[in-house]
Amino acid sequence: MEIGMIGLGKMGLNLTLNLLDHQHKVIGFDKHTASAESVASDGFRLAASVTELVESLPVPRKIWLMVPAGEVTTAVIDELMPLLEKGDILIDGGNSNYKDTLKRAERLEEHGIYFFDCGTSGGVDGARAGACTMVGGDAEKFNEIEPLFRDVSLENGYLYTGKCGSGHFLKMVHNGMEYGMMQAIGEGFDILEKSEFNYDYEKVANVFNHGSVIRSWLMELMENAFSKDANLDEIRGVMNSSGEGKWTVETALDLQAAAPVIALSLMMRYRSQEDDTFSGKVVAALRNEFGGHDVVKK
Amino acid sequence: MEIGMIGLGKMGLNLTLNLLDHQHKVIGFDKHTASAESVASDGFRLAASVTELVESLPVPRKIWLMVPAGEVTTAVIDELMPLLEKGDILIDGGNSNYKDTLKRAERLEEHGIYFFDCGTSGGVDGARAGACTMVGGDAEKFNEIEPLFRDVSLENGYLYTGKCGSGHFLKMVHNGMEYGMMQAIGEGFDILEKSEFNYDYEKVANVFNHGSVIRSWLMELMENAFSKDANLDEIRGVMNSSGEGKWTVETALDLQAAAPVIALSLMMRYRSQEDDTFSGKVVAALRNEFGGHDVVKK
Repeated sequence: MEIGMIGLGKMGLNLTLNLLDHQHKVIGFDKHTASAESVASDGFRLAASVTELVESLPVPRKIWLMVPAGEVTTAVIDELMPLLEKGDILIDGGNSNYKDTLKRAERLEEHGIYFFDCGTSGGVDGARAGACTMVGGDAEKFNEIEPLFRDVSLENGYLYTGKCGSGHFLKMVHNGMEYGMMQAIGEGFDILEKSEFNYDYEKVANVFNHGSVIRSWLMELMENAFSKDANLDEIRGVMNSSGEGKWTVETALDLQAAAPVIALSLMMRYRSQEDDTFSGKVVAALRNEFGGHDVVKK
Repeated sequence: MEIGMIGLGKMGLNLTLNLLDHQHKVIGFDKHTASAESVASDGFRLAASVTELVESLPVPRKIWLMVPAGEVTTAVIDELMPLLEKGDILIDGGNSNYKDTLKRAERLEEHGIYFFDCGTSGGVDGARAGACTMVGGDAEKFNEIEPLFRDVSLENGYLYTGKCGSGHFLKMVHNGMEYGMMQAIGEGFDILEKSEFNYDYEKVANVFNHGSVIRSWLMELMENAFSKDANLDEIRGVMNSSGEGKWTVETALDLQAAAPVIALSLMMRYRSQEDDTFSGKVVAALRNEFGGHDVVKK
């Protein structure tokens, strides 16, 4: 197929290379074109603008967005909207909030444009060599573009998840689970580190990955991390986040679903971003007030 | 080698079959001998008592305990103690609390008996076809019995973890991580179940296992569970536990390690074991007292 790829960052570029490997043709666009220079393929062409990209594609057009979620995605869709025609297909492969996706789907459907939300997992390596994709949108139309997802995903690594929004929703919840799993793994290694024993963490992660109940890709990644920095001496324990964990917790609240471990994992990330806390000062001050307990002075 | 196996339950029996596959000879003992009848091997012999088992083994003896942690393990070691000689080797393959292990190691060492604590993961299938073992004890002596662990474990699935206690400690923390990972997975599926979308959970678990960040054996087990009971309609959400999660949290407290997600995962198990809670009644009563809010009557 011939695809327009908007966004040639780490994910978009690797997805493009992946599509090219599978004999698709790609017309790419990115505001920062430098990365696209590395694409050496007869099947690839760089467009100078969104307009040129749209005009270069055969109708019905198939356009894949791989741009940052939120305002950037909104801006690109706003720019695309007047250029697209009834019957065109738009895929949002980014980490969009499913609520945004639902609104966008409504707007695009009014114009007769098919909108698919594609949750993409597996990181940059996955985008290059075989991602895990979860796709929501029109069921019948999906059959038409299914080969795209089959091609860019690992074998059995794609799923049609139902109506529009369900792909990004599933990817969001996947990330929520990931937050909890990662925090649990982190806490476990922290207990090992504080213990009286001397473990070789790389070897620990390795043995965990050979037959234990917690064998997992995350544990393989830890083995890799410990192999480069045996006690993680080179980094600080600041845990950033990019939105999907927060959305999972917000969604759990909306649905009145009890998800305390995912919520706490998110809050432990926030805690890690502060060197000191006001809540800590409050508790220390109270202990001092009622019991005369020492406080640690600045 | 020739091994005495005490405890022929699910784990001990499968470990015995595994040892026999690897050309070891096993003399087994269990208070309930029925299970041992299924062992058809020239390399296997059933002893009628612990005494007979000890007397049948060549010195230095190698005895593997695969009995329930706690009192049963203590009782078996008490029975063995006067029968064993200096230089004998005792392996505790059960889920013993590492604090018990440290005490037992001290006592056994006084008698010149080598004591190894072997944390065993991978479940019954692992015990049969390749477990994951984490072994603490005398470093030099370990070399002598290393082939045993190499044989019963998956390739690269065993680790010498350091001094006595370190094997059971590591297995304990492994289980603590497992609690958190399982709770996070559970909460994620709960959010999916309460959402406006209709997911096929078996397919969701399947696609998660093909390229996603959270691919793991636990997710494979979920795929299996959903394949048998698509929405888990046949079971209740009562989450029992068998001690290691609690020990992990107790240890975290002793070490003043912040492990909130593992602790909360444990408490969510306790919550699941109650149909109603006294804490819930207290909060409902307070809301009624200060705000006149309705309570749900029995």
